[in-house]
Amino acid sequence: MTLKNDLVLRAAKGEHVERTPVWLMRQAGRVLPEYRAVRAKMGGFKQLVETPEFACEVTIQPVDILGVDAAIIFSDILVIPEAMGLPYQMVEAKGPWFEKTIKSADDISKLKIAQPEDLQYVMNAIQLTKRELNGRVPLIGFAGAPWTIFSYMTEGSGSKTFSKAKKFLYTQPEQAHHLLQKITDSTINYLKGQIAAGADMLQLFDSWAGVLSPAQYDEFALKYISQICDAITEVPFTVFAKDAHFARKKMGALSCDTIGLDWTMDIAESRTFIGNDKTLQGNMDPCLLYADMETIKKETQKMLRQFGAHRHIANLGHGLYPDIEVDKVKCFVDTIKEFRF
Amino acid sequence: MTLKNDLVLRAAKGEHVERTPVWLMRQAGRVLPEYRAVRAKMGGFKQLVETPEFACEVTIQPVDILGVDAAIIFSDILVIPEAMGLPYQMVEAKGPWFEKTIKSADDISKLKIAQPEDLQYVMNAIQLTKRELNGRVPLIGFAGAPWTIFSYMTEGSGSKTFSKAKKFLYTQPEQAHHLLQKITDSTINYLKGQIAAGADMLQLFDSWAGVLSPAQYDEFALKYISQICDAITEVPFTVFAKDAHFARKKMGALSCDTIGLDWTMDIAESRTFIGNDKTLQGNMDPCLLYADMETIKKETQKMLRQFGAHRHIANLGHGLYPDIEVDKVKCFVDTIKEFRF
Repeated sequence: MTLKNDLVLRAAKGEHVERTPVWLMRQAGRVLPEYRAVRAKMGGFKQLVETPEFACEVTIQPVDILGVDAAIIFSDILVIPEAMGLPYQMVEAKGPWFEKTIKSADDISKLKIAQPEDLQYVMNAIQLTKRELNGRVPLIGFAGAPWTIFSYMTEGSGSKTFSKAKKFLYTQPEQAHHLLQKITDSTINYLKGQIAAGADMLQLFDSWAGVLSPAQYDEFALKYISQICDAITEVPFTVFAKDAHFARKKMGALSCDTIGLDWTMDIAESRTFIGNDKTLQGNMDPCLLYADMETIKKETQKMLRQFGAHRHIANLGHGLYPDIEVDKVKCFVDTIKEFRF
Repeated sequence: MTLKNDLVLRAAKGEHVERTPVWLMRQAGRVLPEYRAVRAKMGGFKQLVETPEFACEVTIQPVDILGVDAAIIFSDILVIPEAMGLPYQMVEAKGPWFEKTIKSADDISKLKIAQPEDLQYVMNAIQLTKRELNGRVPLIGFAGAPWTIFSYMTEGSGSKTFSKAKKFLYTQPEQAHHLLQKITDSTINYLKGQIAAGADMLQLFDSWAGVLSPAQYDEFALKYISQICDAITEVPFTVFAKDAHFARKKMGALSCDTIGLDWTMDIAESRTFIGNDKTLQGNMDPCLLYADMETIKKETQKMLRQFGAHRHIANLGHGLYPDIEVDKVKCFVDTIKEFRF
């Protein structure tokens, strides 16, 4: 099916676009009252993720309500550990929690390499959403980057320092590589499955990139991201490593199309580090959307000018915060859609 | 009194040193069994901070046990909000918590500018510690940077995003400046008091620098750090802004002696950004101290070579984690003390 709006795909590939496209991380989520209404009907976050009809409904909501240029499938990065044999719970107001964590070579050997059919509910949700979107905008699929998945599997929950996960790297480096490779193989299978199900574009989220040193990031993170980039050749591919300011030069050498930036990364400096062969995605501070409309417009226009007319996909530098007003989100999206260079 | 070991002071001023000096952030703390023993006798963390005899005892412990080249007064950055009229509690395993937070111009107008006598227990602890140290090593005093203090006063506790504190900047920028100026004036008074009490060196901690964009960091953080640097001319002064990778160039222009680096900041790149007029402090990943002794030695020597023989004060890139073994900390300290270029 031909897409009616393929701005995001063209921007990712460095082709001409009439205007800068925009979508938002966490656009399908608590910021929308319509999402909260669907969520209230369900038992919880995981039930929503695992029920294709509901995942489809909340995935499309921001396309209708906010007018964004892409949908991103409503899911969670932690479906991968679960498919590998390490289940988790999403604890309200606390975040993910794993009853069992990975501590030893024996724990790692018991994990399986995930196959697309292990995550059939995600594939079903993608197929259903593609049908329901009916070509209005592209559908983005995603996965967590291996280091971030590893950090949850070894730490067992979120953390300020991820010191347990990092301790594993320092004390059992060989076993760490073994686990990272299993996660990487699972992730490639999973992303290939998402492409087969209809995803038009893919993004890798390395949420905890910022806790590693540059040397450890090379060894335990970039190495595996690079394998995934090399394996995904069918659709445009984005890598977003939050807080990995130190890795921008090496990110420029990955075989992906787009690099996500957070708001601490200066735009001109990032372009210099990354080079001209990549599209940049981001990078507004989500907290700007607490400001008044005039400030939101002014700062958004400033950001657009800093990125320039080409090879930019507008987004925030991280996910939307749940207490942001929908009108402010619309103001951000509309400012981008109305802007012309 | 003449100091028997003034390596840290000479390194800060860019003078010749026979070897690289070392101290550790959080060296007085839970990592030492001797600290835990003192702590167990007290009601809690704040009681320890507020009792000069005990603060003195735990301040000197790492000089005896670890052989570090400086002591840092055992205290807390949040004594400043309290002295301004905003008390806090330290909740076990949770961190600081303010019953009342700053929300409006009216809240700000009720705050006082702190004077040294409002923090007489810190001054007493410094005087006592200087006497007990008897010139063995310099005593470092410290304060939180204005943005970090502001973020606790408006957020009311620690936070992953500090979105309430940042919302204040976006929605009430003028009031934010008013509060930041009051904090800055209080901090200058406080640091001048520490010098009068005998502190040989001072450090400013901007723990939450990394949540701001470069533009906001300039406007709401660096502006006030710069005022403090200009006001403190009596003793060597260090600024450590964790995660403020984007501000390194501007840090090089501050009128301070030393800039702290965290472990995500490449050493050579940081030197280029900051220039040759500053001493650099840091920057080992605290998690290295989970590794075996051989790895600790090898990585520590590598760090020393990367910084070079001059204008370096060895330290971690953040505070020690409480579950690190004392022998590993000693290994780090000894490797530095034994190293010769």
